[in-house]
Amino acid sequence: MITTILFDIGDTLVHAAAPGTPVDAPQAAPLPGALRTVRALASTHRLGAVTDTAVKTGADVMVALTGTGFEDLLEVIVTSQEIGAAKPDPIGLFAAMTALDATPSQTLFIGDADVDEAAAAAAGVAFARIDPRETDPVDAAVRRALVQLDGPLSAAVALVPAVDHDAEREATSRHLQLTKPPGSLGRLESLGIQLAAIAGQVPPPVPRPAAVAVFAADHGVVASGVTPWPQEVTSQMVANFVSGGAAINVLARQAGATVTVIDVGVAADLDGMGITVSPRLWSRRIRSGTADLSRGSAMTFTEARAALDLGAEVAASLVGAGARALVTGDMGIGNTTASAAVIAALTATDAKAVTGRGTGIDDAMFRHKVELIDKALARLPADPDPVLVLSEVGGLEIAALAGFVVGGASLRVPVVVDGVIAAAALLAAHTLCPAVLPYVVAGHRSTEPGSSAVLSRLGLDPVIDLGLRLGEGSGACLALASLEAAALVLRDMATFEEAHVVNGA
Amino acid sequence: MITTILFDIGDTLVHAAAPGTPVDAPQAAPLPGALRTVRALASTHRLGAVTDTAVKTGADVMVALTGTGFEDLLEVIVTSQEIGAAKPDPIGLFAAMTALDATPSQTLFIGDADVDEAAAAAAGVAFARIDPRETDPVDAAVRRALVQLDGPLSAAVALVPAVDHDAEREATSRHLQLTKPPGSLGRLESLGIQLAAIAGQVPPPVPRPAAVAVFAADHGVVASGVTPWPQEVTSQMVANFVSGGAAINVLARQAGATVTVIDVGVAADLDGMGITVSPRLWSRRIRSGTADLSRGSAMTFTEARAALDLGAEVAASLVGAGARALVTGDMGIGNTTASAAVIAALTATDAKAVTGRGTGIDDAMFRHKVELIDKALARLPADPDPVLVLSEVGGLEIAALAGFVVGGASLRVPVVVDGVIAAAALLAAHTLCPAVLPYVVAGHRSTEPGSSAVLSRLGLDPVIDLGLRLGEGSGACLALASLEAAALVLRDMATFEEAHVVNGA
Repeated sequence: MITTILFDIGDTLVHAAAPGTPVDAPQAAPLPGALRTVRALASTHRLGAVTDTAVKTGADVMVALTGTGFEDLLEVIVTSQEIGAAKPDPIGLFAAMTALDATPSQTLFIGDADVDEAAAAAAGVAFARIDPRETDPVDAAVRRALVQLDGPLSAAVALVPAVDHDAEREATSRHLQLTKPPGSLGRLESLGIQLAAIAGQVPPPVPRPAAVAVFAADHGVVASGVTPWPQEVTSQMVANFVSGGAAINVLARQAGATVTVIDVGVAADLDGMGITVSPRLWSRRIRSGTADLSRGSAMTFTEARAALDLGAEVAASLVGAGARALVTGDMGIGNTTASAAVIAALTATDAKAVTGRGTGIDDAMFRHKVELIDKALARLPADPDPVLVLSEVGGLEIAALAGFVVGGASLRVPVVVDGVIAAAALLAAHTLCPAVLPYVVAGHRSTEPGSSAVLSRLGLDPVIDLGLRLGEGSGACLALASLEAAALVLRDMATFEEAHVVNGA
Repeated sequence: MITTILFDIGDTLVHAAAPGTPVDAPQAAPLPGALRTVRALASTHRLGAVTDTAVKTGADVMVALTGTGFEDLLEVIVTSQEIGAAKPDPIGLFAAMTALDATPSQTLFIGDADVDEAAAAAAGVAFARIDPRETDPVDAAVRRALVQLDGPLSAAVALVPAVDHDAEREATSRHLQLTKPPGSLGRLESLGIQLAAIAGQVPPPVPRPAAVAVFAADHGVVASGVTPWPQEVTSQMVANFVSGGAAINVLARQAGATVTVIDVGVAADLDGMGITVSPRLWSRRIRSGTADLSRGSAMTFTEARAALDLGAEVAASLVGAGARALVTGDMGIGNTTASAAVIAALTATDAKAVTGRGTGIDDAMFRHKVELIDKALARLPADPDPVLVLSEVGGLEIAALAGFVVGGASLRVPVVVDGVIAAAALLAAHTLCPAVLPYVVAGHRSTEPGSSAVLSRLGLDPVIDLGLRLGEGSGACLALASLEAAALVLRDMATFEEAHVVNGA
């Protein structure tokens, strides 16, 4: 596990100064996005720099960095001048690791040159090279390395940046100049401001196309009688998604969104059913359904972790393919039981307060469902780790969705969350990585009580409130039109000045 | 004013029986839509029939109509056999008018033949001829005549049919067959069922394109200090609508809806401002702004009536041009004052309960606004006529919107109503013609208290609740995506049978 990240400075964090630049020369400008990335990493990793300079000490470099923002983020700066050895000699890296209490296997070095790579190899430290042709070179280099070393989830958790408060302020101010009374577009204004903060642009890009990822998995707990719907419906619905006949297909088509189904843990033999892998159906099964959470762990810690990684990876794939917003989708008979359990565990409430009737069950089955969840919750310690919660009482699609939320946030796209399954996943994601929250748009309020519990816990205001309780991503998909409208208003409305309208505010 | 409508029967209400058809032969089928139209007319007009038959009495014809539905709607049937004179002799029409207590100038005769027209001319009765090439020939003939004789509003009020309860039931039943738990799409299901009931089709047609009609007018009450926004903003915003820079333009473009601005009573000289009439801006000014409603009647009864007629006419024009849903839009500095007054008058509540802060006014101005409204309301009798309310304390755009709602309902298209201005208009429309209600979709809940008061009074559940208070039709436009989704779900989702999914419900 990487705990420590060291950076070269010139052409890695900032544009390199020309040779012979005086010690007190103004510092060169940071590379695009570098500061944002380093600031994000500071919340999960210890950071330092190892740089070659003939004349400066670490303290000199720190002074030279003053005003860039890096000076507050790098705990140590080791220069060749101080230690008397330039890269590829690894001695600078060793000095920095000693200062930061890290071993070589815990350390990642980021640089732009062959000497950086050679020094890392000599020190036994992982290395990733800056590619200046990328739009966000530091993020890209760190992400490649962390995905490989620690997996997609850890990489994503480390790389969720703060949203752009300058853009947020600029969007807020632009709203006051548009031809309408201030605040009169209500939530549409705050959504637009959020999109601007996420993208770091005013007006924000229109979040289109969106991509719906429907994670499908089965739940061992159905054997204990929590739903009248047989388990085979999960795989039958996967077939329905693939052929385009489910609600999410209809709603996504209308919203111009893609639908990708990911088999993260369906119990049935899809291939044997004639449901074949395609660009619309990804086979990424971690296990064929969970075990019965009412009788023991739903899955192992490793499986939960793999599902989290998968979710983060799917987010990256979809954004890489052009998605400008992500929508959480889910399918899994029995998954309102697992979701209620996850929400109860992570909010420290009784099952009864957050459990609903799912597809529509009678009183007796509802009481039984609540009892099973309470029994399962009793196995958890107080204030449990979210990965433990997911493995004990969660579901494969819930864990994957949690990773998906973190993955989307780390890529700076809005993540529109659906109903109670997504709410459970969001809660887990937020517990793992609180920085995701500003990237999240609550698509809708499900009638399932767990949905409202999470929305209120996280202070989220849903866009749509139409009494939906279907899942699949349906409610979130309905919210996309308002999300796009929020961006279009900032982009296309005339200002008072442009339209020659008197501003009466 | 037409109070009485008489019909020929063969090829007017029902396909004509061949000559020599026995008295007890099964009755021919009604013409398309005839029964729906006659049923609608029965709530506003006295109805009868005048038919030529060599062998049947009126009672015989009534028996022969049994089962068609017409037998419960026609108060009298006069046959040539009974009175011994066939059309073009007017004696049959006179006999029917006598039975229905109507004068010739109060009577409209609908037939398909030259003898019908000649009889009407001889009787001094208005006539309209069935054109069998039209899809809804009885509605079309009656509408043409009533628009000409009594104006577009009266025609529309008379022609709002009941929605189709068979289609409603069929859509409800189809929802239970679609691949989802019953009821799990919440309000989207009820919206789809409403669309089916309106259109009389399952699945209902997708209500696209929608047409937004933005009725613009000024309000004399602004002189009494109810808003910090100067009156000139109304005309400036009209220019903004025409050039496409206002919120409604942005939201309509996104929803694929057209925007038509109708100057029903702007105070400024638009032409002098260089704002010229175009297909996007219709000049239909009734007067240049209302008088100050706090000091006397806002307009005359005749002007209110003209605005109502205009609204119904605009609805017919837009539907004729292809609109499959209508959206209420409005612009008029000061119009939250007039709307609050209309809502208070028609709900018999105090101004305070239904008055809001409009564009955002301070406490002192708000108190002043409430006082002015209460003062104006004191001029009205108890339980006032809605046209009187509109003329005393209303606005030209509010009256036009009321006519627009009735017009849309009479043409069987969904009418999506916006915020508080539309709510005032809807309340007036509903008071004039309660049958409009099943055609209305509450687009959103405005933060203005009058909006909620009307929604709750009429039992309407808004689609969008995002804290908007802009007007222009903005909230209703945002609801269009959900309305379309509701139709698409019924059209495009697979059934359990089609998708081979087990129905666990």
